Amino acid sequence: MELERPLDALNDARNKRVLVELKNGRQYAGKLKAFDIHVNIVLQDAEERAEGETKRKLGVTFIRGDTIILITPE
Amino acid sequence: MELERPLDALNDARNKRVLVELKNGRQYAGKLKAFDIHVNIVLQDAEERAEGETKRKLGVTFIRGDTIILITPE
Amino acid sequence: MELERPLDALNDARNKRVLVELKNGRQYAGKLKAFDIHVNIVLQDAEERAEGETKRKLGVTFIRGDTIILITPE
Amino acid sequence: MELERPLDALNDARNKRVLVELKNGRQYAGKLKAFDIHVNIVLQDAEERAEGETKRKLGVTFIRGDTIILITPE
Amino acid sequence: MELERPLDALNDARNKRVLVELKNGRQYAGKLKAFDIHVNIVLQDAEERAEGETKRKLGVTFIRGDTIILITPE
Amino acid sequence: MELERPLDALNDARNKRVLVELKNGRQYAGKLKAFDIHVNIVLQDAEERAEGETKRKLGVTFIRGDTIILITPE
Amino acid sequence: MELERPLDALNDARNKRVLVELKNGRQYAGKLKAFDIHVNIVLQDAEERAEGETKRKLGVTFIRGDTIILITPE
Repeated sequence: MELERPLDALNDARNKRVLVELKNGRQYAGKLKAFDIHVNIVLQDAEERAEGETKRKLGVTFIRGDTIILITPE
Repeated sequence: MELERPLDALNDARNKRVLVELKNGRQYAGKLKAFDIHVNIVLQDAEERAEGETKRKLGVTFIRGDTIILITPE
Repeated sequence: MELERPLDALNDARNKRVLVELKNGRQYAGKLKAFDIHVNIVLQDAEERAEGETKRKLGVTFIRGDTIILITPE
Repeated sequence: MELERPLDALNDARNKRVLVELKNGRQYAGKLKAFDIHVNIVLQDAEERAEGETKRKLGVTFIRGDTIILITPE
Repeated sequence: MELERPLDALNDARNKRVLVELKNGRQYAGKLKAFDIHVNIVLQDAEERAEGETKRKLGVTFIRGDTIILITPE
Repeated sequence: MELERPLDALNDARNKRVLVELKNGRQYAGKLKAFDIHVNIVLQDAEERAEGETKRKLGVTFIRGDTIILITPE
Repeated sequence: MELERPLDALNDARNKRVLVELKNGRQYAGKLKAFDIHVNIVLQDAEERAEGETKRKLGVTFIRGDTIILITPE
């Protein structure tokens, strides 16, 4: 894996399912549809999780970048 | 669904009802009338909710972007 | 109601009474006299409220934008 | 009172006594001598207050803007 | 070791294993694949640790720079 | 005292002893040697204080501006 | 000691041992190898300390500027 910049990793993950962890401890899983330099993202078929269990299904979800800790493939 | 940038998802949601979750745990539902690159938004017919119940009706409401965690269709 | 940008909603509210909620839980009501792109605002005949009751009358009050959660017509 | 921008209200208050409330709950009263677009301010004959009582006299005091919630005439 | 700028140290660490500590107290170890001026980073073969023990394996992980305290070779 | 901008007050305090209060409640006293627009400062012969008592002597100390609440002559 | 700007003090400290205190209360000592305008720094032979005792040795360590309160010669 060769990456020039961190956002290249998000580009590689586009249209794939990712897990997103927020500063408030919440987790969202979904298909990564879009991101920008602020790390604002849009997930499709998003679901909120807690301790491995789905708590809520949310559909297309915009998440503000400054709330995000990490993004990793599901 | 093809999106170039995260704000495109907000553009698709314009004039539709959305649910907005804030960093302080509060939720607002309303029709998305406007947004900008800071994710400042305006909701029409906004209502504040807690645990699925309407707590307050607010009308046209400006919400400052840096308080927002996520925006999703209602 | 048609709005291009969120600040247009504040422009529509100029010289009208608004309710402003801050991140620290406090509420201020007053006539919206001015705002800028940081959402710094000035209220005239401002009053601080808690649970629907007026706690303090403040007159012309400058409120720094980064403390604000939302602004809505009173 | 007609104001174009919020900082105009601070300009009107220059050389008058104001009350400044900070995010940490502290209050400072003094004569407003200077301010800038970050809402950094300088108070002359500043005093720190708690519950209406003067706790400390501070003289010329520079207060960093990002600690400020509101500024109002004393 | 001569460095002109702090990011030079991250460049020296590229493709080597590093330990990353976050503001929320969590630690991530992995191979540093990319970074930018915001200190956004990508780790390969990332694992989350607590008190020296591996809690989770995460694979390729994007970590937002503003959550990071320090980065050091493992 | 006439000031155009808040940083003018810091310029007047250069090479004089000041008291600096931080967001975490700590106080530092020392001779103000330098400052910039972020309110980063350098104190010479700095000492950390708590409740009027010197806790530690620190010598030349760089303090990051975003940790500062206020700066006042000692 | 004459300084034009605060970062000049960091320049004077380059290649000397410094003590760095973070917003989370942690302390790091090490040789200052690099810094930038965000106060991102790199320490060589860094060690984490608590109450005067060394807790961990870290080697070359990048510390993100926005976590730093102060930097002073050891």
